[in-house]
Amino acid sequence: MGQTCERSSLACVAVSSKEIRIGLLGFGNVGSALAGQIVSRSEAIAERTGISLSISRVAVRDVARKRPGLDKRRATDDPAAVVASPNVDVVVELMGGIEPAKTLILSALRNGKPVITGNKELIAAHGAELFAAADRAGVDLLFEAAVAGGIPLIRPLRESLIGERIHRVLGIVNGTTNFILTKMAEQGQDYTEALAEAQALGYAEADPTADVGGHDAASKAAIIATMAFGQQVTAKDVPREGIDLVSAADVSFAKELGHVIKLLAVAEDHDGELTVRVYPAMIPLTHPLASVRQAFNAVFVEGEDVGRLMFYGRGAGGGPTASAVLGDVIDASTNLLQGSHASIGALGKMRKLPESALRSSFYLNLEVTDQPGVLAAVATVFAKHLVSIESMEQAGLGGNARIVFITHECNESDMKRCLSDLRKLKAVKRIVSTLRVIEDR
Amino acid sequence: MGQTCERSSLACVAVSSKEIRIGLLGFGNVGSALAGQIVSRSEAIAERTGISLSISRVAVRDVARKRPGLDKRRATDDPAAVVASPNVDVVVELMGGIEPAKTLILSALRNGKPVITGNKELIAAHGAELFAAADRAGVDLLFEAAVAGGIPLIRPLRESLIGERIHRVLGIVNGTTNFILTKMAEQGQDYTEALAEAQALGYAEADPTADVGGHDAASKAAIIATMAFGQQVTAKDVPREGIDLVSAADVSFAKELGHVIKLLAVAEDHDGELTVRVYPAMIPLTHPLASVRQAFNAVFVEGEDVGRLMFYGRGAGGGPTASAVLGDVIDASTNLLQGSHASIGALGKMRKLPESALRSSFYLNLEVTDQPGVLAAVATVFAKHLVSIESMEQAGLGGNARIVFITHECNESDMKRCLSDLRKLKAVKRIVSTLRVIEDR
Repeated sequence: MGQTCERSSLACVAVSSKEIRIGLLGFGNVGSALAGQIVSRSEAIAERTGISLSISRVAVRDVARKRPGLDKRRATDDPAAVVASPNVDVVVELMGGIEPAKTLILSALRNGKPVITGNKELIAAHGAELFAAADRAGVDLLFEAAVAGGIPLIRPLRESLIGERIHRVLGIVNGTTNFILTKMAEQGQDYTEALAEAQALGYAEADPTADVGGHDAASKAAIIATMAFGQQVTAKDVPREGIDLVSAADVSFAKELGHVIKLLAVAEDHDGELTVRVYPAMIPLTHPLASVRQAFNAVFVEGEDVGRLMFYGRGAGGGPTASAVLGDVIDASTNLLQGSHASIGALGKMRKLPESALRSSFYLNLEVTDQPGVLAAVATVFAKHLVSIESMEQAGLGGNARIVFITHECNESDMKRCLSDLRKLKAVKRIVSTLRVIEDR
Repeated sequence: MGQTCERSSLACVAVSSKEIRIGLLGFGNVGSALAGQIVSRSEAIAERTGISLSISRVAVRDVARKRPGLDKRRATDDPAAVVASPNVDVVVELMGGIEPAKTLILSALRNGKPVITGNKELIAAHGAELFAAADRAGVDLLFEAAVAGGIPLIRPLRESLIGERIHRVLGIVNGTTNFILTKMAEQGQDYTEALAEAQALGYAEADPTADVGGHDAASKAAIIATMAFGQQVTAKDVPREGIDLVSAADVSFAKELGHVIKLLAVAEDHDGELTVRVYPAMIPLTHPLASVRQAFNAVFVEGEDVGRLMFYGRGAGGGPTASAVLGDVIDASTNLLQGSHASIGALGKMRKLPESALRSSFYLNLEVTDQPGVLAAVATVFAKHLVSIESMEQAGLGGNARIVFITHECNESDMKRCLSDLRKLKAVKRIVSTLRVIEDR
């Protein structure tokens, strides 16, 4: 905007020039990709929107390190100075982590500077506080890049679907685990093998816990649920199960049963009460999510009137994520120049569905003794706990005899009691695995 | 807004109440679904956004006709009166057609009233003029419902991806033809049979020309291309081929070759020069668009940095389309109350790629004489015109001998000359069909 501007109100809107100067916090994969995109596109963007973008200041940890694409004269190791700089109109936070990112973002907002962030951890933990700060300041806090990388998802949820009554969102929101599960399904690899390949290709970290344990997906699930249902859901509210217990045998049974296993972020509304969870689940091959392969992400939305929607694309990587940041930067700049801003709207406290009301279909894989009467014994336990069977398959013989079931929807608490009783049966040597099953309704 | 307001400038923004009164033009499928959604959701919407929506006036053709959900006291047969009414803040146009819709929309915009429309025909013909009028008035003209029904597509294109360099958009944007092609592919029906079933189920009109001839898809292709590339593309700029010549044999060959046939809206950018067309094409089964079945729509976007994106959902029907309208209504209301508005941005004139530069892969189905030397003769013609073969399949014998080819990408003009020479061969009895092939790149 080419002028210093204390914006505690909307008074300072009528700027004459349309130059927008970005202060960038962090210059890793995404930051450097963003810088490249701005260099190569700024002319086309100015032609279309009338906004001339430039990066005026960049905060990095180590100023001495050489970084291609970064003009050293713009670099500093003091992110607070970038936020406070009179030469910065819009702040892009790509440092990650809770602090100092949170303090920096709040400071930028208080100074009337819109903030764009890709920080899922921060938004999933302190979203409500940050959204309120942005509303008070009358500027944008945008975070399209925080969920599902380059896929436009947050904007459709917060704008296009804000009037829709959303029943359920199912998301493949972690590319690493989807890559691993794809390898297991298509090449018969076991979990350890597929993980090692993902690590070799740079899809998985040396310590893969955040991905395979479902932590990353839980943050994204919290953000998606907050947007979709207008309630404050944090990562802590999201119970999670990872994919580390999914075996090659489960994957192969899934295939036989016409399903595929995916790690899902599941957010459901039951008359205003929510369940938000992350777990590996079987999906029928006919479901659009089933064909989401490799490191791709997709988010499937079921709405009262809009019906079934799916958003598909690259959930990670510098280019796609920076593309999402760039869209937000242009949007925030337009709003800043108009003196308007986008609001998440009023968020209610999260109302959790009581655990006793949770319902699911299940896949059960039981190792059993190879004797007459086994099925009768197992079926009696199912019946006692009101669990009814949709399909069954027997496999193996002798010491390796298996029975695999898919159940109809039942109370999860009934299933817990059912599993506990099954463990007591002499005929059942081991409950090898249980997975939830998503019905294609 | 609860007050009469001549808004030629932004002066009249600081309204105290957040009531937004909608004037609805048309009360068919979509209009009545919208009315139902507003009744059932207005409280939830007000809670989240602070905006209280109501429908204050409705223009219908025949006021005497009973319509469930329509309060007769709000109805009139004079749409201009609805637009001019001091009790209408936002106009929703669902009449369709060019006139009087265009005049009514321009009049609403001039009076500072945002307009939401689902009128693809109008936007595809006169979009640039209407967008300019909205910009001059400083209010919104939103049209999410005009393309791909309930799928959030226009908003992601105009906001999320405005900084992205989009290379190509492939869209399944007509549910009727996708339903027919799905029936042909999955149940072996021929075109006439599948069309009859679509008509019986209400997916196709008695006169199906607009759908099966690609007219509907061409309007949507023009709008998509305008949004994606920032150039003024109208329906007239979009050559189209329909699906009426697609035969059961083509569908069955496609399957054998690992493909499926879809009617596509194809918009491509070649260094600033555009090709925008509608044609039936073969898509490899591995492509995400291949699994879009029945009456569903999907739009596949290939961007320089964002990579591959897909937006999937219901492209028609009262509920989904009204859901898109409702999202726009809330967005426009928010902007109206803030005195801001969304702009398409500056649109350049369309720069068409010269026909001589068009390139495609092709599927050719030739009826040939069952004699030695046929393949040699055909292959010689291909070679002469620089068309190289990717795969070939022979089928049938005697009077029904066929050769089916898929070519590598070649100049379309070379293919035209090649086909003309093939027709002259004694060995070639008939060119049964030609289809373009989309490569999964």
